[in-house]
Amino acid sequence: MATIKVLGYPLSTATRLVLCCLEEKQVDYELVVVDAAAGAHKQPQYLALNPFGLVPTIQDGDLTLFESRAIVKYLAKKYKGQGTELFGNSLSEEALVEQWCEVEGQSYNSPALTILSQILFVPKKGGTTDEALVEMNVEKLVKVLDIYEERLSKSKYLAGDFFSLADLQHLPTTHYLVTDCGKGDLISSRKHVKAWWEDISCRPAWKKVSEKGP
Amino acid sequence: MATIKVLGYPLSTATRLVLCCLEEKQVDYELVVVDAAAGAHKQPQYLALNPFGLVPTIQDGDLTLFESRAIVKYLAKKYKGQGTELFGNSLSEEALVEQWCEVEGQSYNSPALTILSQILFVPKKGGTTDEALVEMNVEKLVKVLDIYEERLSKSKYLAGDFFSLADLQHLPTTHYLVTDCGKGDLISSRKHVKAWWEDISCRPAWKKVSEKGP
Repeated sequence: MATIKVLGYPLSTATRLVLCCLEEKQVDYELVVVDAAAGAHKQPQYLALNPFGLVPTIQDGDLTLFESRAIVKYLAKKYKGQGTELFGNSLSEEALVEQWCEVEGQSYNSPALTILSQILFVPKKGGTTDEALVEMNVEKLVKVLDIYEERLSKSKYLAGDFFSLADLQHLPTTHYLVTDCGKGDLISSRKHVKAWWEDISCRPAWKKVSEKGP
Repeated sequence: MATIKVLGYPLSTATRLVLCCLEEKQVDYELVVVDAAAGAHKQPQYLALNPFGLVPTIQDGDLTLFESRAIVKYLAKKYKGQGTELFGNSLSEEALVEQWCEVEGQSYNSPALTILSQILFVPKKGGTTDEALVEMNVEKLVKVLDIYEERLSKSKYLAGDFFSLADLQHLPTTHYLVTDCGKGDLISSRKHVKAWWEDISCRPAWKKVSEKGP
């Protein structure tokens, strides 16, 4: 079987999501670095694989696939029975994983990424952080995290008492919020969210991916 | 087997997505109207089922599920072999369905909903449409639709030569854009997008759902 190729940028949140999933599933892969900082993801060669010009894209034999949340579902299904089960063990569990994956994609990711972008990337490009925009998105995240706190008081992980793609999807953005954006209090001020974060951010797969330099 | 209950609001795009999926799958259901116009989705009774206070939520026996894109995946899997197959017929096809579902959720939905909101809902609440915001989001949608045009020149539907959840997810917002927002030119100016839209918007399941009044 051909090794899965990941065309990605090691610092990108979406690339890290896919790499972490591959590590959890104990799947061999080859990382082909697309130098997003230099604009390589907007060049014709890459756009031919992913017309949206976003990293990552994977190649698995004849299949070319983009959208990180679609990729991790594909990997979880293809390698069912290998490494960590990430998609539950019944139709109902799978449905709850899907539900919390959608919550991440629709309600958590956008404010989290806006904060990251304003605090980390805008200054790097010579701009000034829009503090009002940061504050507005922190408020959005507070509402989501208050709901997580309630949920995590009833189950150890988002989809139930098992680690899943739903938790995994929160690792890359939350890591930057906590370690690089000074927003750790969003997590540590909530008892159950804090315990959840301490648990999932210590997983060996995530440590391996997040400690890799560029 | 208990009938699936859909707690939703018939005019909401997310409710219509779920109803259309149920119609395609030929599944019996009961629609319990949550009067979102009157704020019923923000009342404690509903928030106990869905803490995000968004419609719809389904109840299927012991399972309570929200997030419309998660619900339709659950239905497509549970009723595999009944009604229209909406999730492909192999792991690779399923992956491409997931990919284009994510494109809808991450790139198409947000600009489309912003346009709907500005043109339809803001004036209803006594406000004034922010034309600059509409224009900015039309530009975002143009970029996405240009990619769809290229894609649909190669396959009849988004995920391949079969109708799927990925196409289905575009029906509710695009319907309002075309029929109520005067944005039909976004679709009709693109040959392949136009043919795709004429095909999917004429499906009996969608006609049944979209022609229902409030």
